[in-house]
Amino acid sequence: MTSTQTRRARESVDVPSLFAVRDAVQGQPEIAQFQFRARNEWVSGTHNRSTIQGFFGPGQEDTTRTEPFRYDADHPAVLIGTNHGPTAVEFLLHAIAACLTSGLGNIAAARGVTLHRVSSTVEGDINLLGILGLSDSVRNGYRQIRVNFEIEGDASPEELAALVEQSRRRSAVYDVLVNGTDVVIDVNVPSAA
Amino acid sequence: MTSTQTRRARESVDVPSLFAVRDAVQGQPEIAQFQFRARNEWVSGTHNRSTIQGFFGPGQEDTTRTEPFRYDADHPAVLIGTNHGPTAVEFLLHAIAACLTSGLGNIAAARGVTLHRVSSTVEGDINLLGILGLSDSVRNGYRQIRVNFEIEGDASPEELAALVEQSRRRSAVYDVLVNGTDVVIDVNVPSAA
Repeated sequence: MTSTQTRRARESVDVPSLFAVRDAVQGQPEIAQFQFRARNEWVSGTHNRSTIQGFFGPGQEDTTRTEPFRYDADHPAVLIGTNHGPTAVEFLLHAIAACLTSGLGNIAAARGVTLHRVSSTVEGDINLLGILGLSDSVRNGYRQIRVNFEIEGDASPEELAALVEQSRRRSAVYDVLVNGTDVVIDVNVPSAA
Repeated sequence: MTSTQTRRARESVDVPSLFAVRDAVQGQPEIAQFQFRARNEWVSGTHNRSTIQGFFGPGQEDTTRTEPFRYDADHPAVLIGTNHGPTAVEFLLHAIAACLTSGLGNIAAARGVTLHRVSSTVEGDINLLGILGLSDSVRNGYRQIRVNFEIEGDASPEELAALVEQSRRRSAVYDVLVNGTDVVIDVNVPSAA
């Protein structure tokens, strides 16, 4: 292990800032209320594109993202699409891996653990009888999602595994995927001009 | 409205294929079992990157995606990140908008409704007291997600709104976000060579 590798994890997370944010929120709990957003435009068929940029928090509109992030979604041909992007359900798999891994990066830094490598694979099983409307007893969504982490770092196997466990305990995406949340859908049909 | 616009929605979804897929699955329900996947690699700090390409179904490994899709995730500075990508929770907002919109594209085609425009905005509220570990009574994930659609097409307001409702009824992402699912997390710590 080179000294460059040693420095990598510690430099990449600003530990004093991590505790500063926590202290700031503790002293002023009302700034903990965040709102995230996305905007999606239909392109054609099953192909559509989301734009993500602004969010609200802490206590004000964020202006640090100078460019929007854009993501296409589509279906493969077997689901009557054109492969311009992954399916929406695959973005759920990205989200759970990303949330656990981002949290793990912060927790490792806070605990002084230098990470060398963190990889994860995510699998999700869906029976399409649900979304095709061919069965009332099969759900539309994933029956199960499995996340498998491989971690290498300067700590015992137990300490490295504990990073994943702590990240799971504080993961927003894990919470939503396991416990569900309230989703409200509204439709506006602009009157023809 | 030009004839190009009129053709757009109908040409972009292959309606005979849509029913052919449904009929094929109905005749051979075991091919309805799909598995989607993602792979994620930690980059540094809260920055990580997912790769999405292969999936299993119907009845075989898909080979139609010749290039992998790659997505960075990160935190903003206020959450101790470097803005190399959106946060994981924002990908959940992309996923719900994309799933409802892809489904809507297929349903409109099946019903012979020509769409001119479909846009949606998604907002999600999270109180960070949960993920910062500052409150036992505040959840980690979204308290609520709101999706607002605007739709223009050659159908009555009621028919256009009904497209969203039918898409919601068959949405895999809506089901997971509202009802939750089983998420299993494993950790492998390769022994030091």
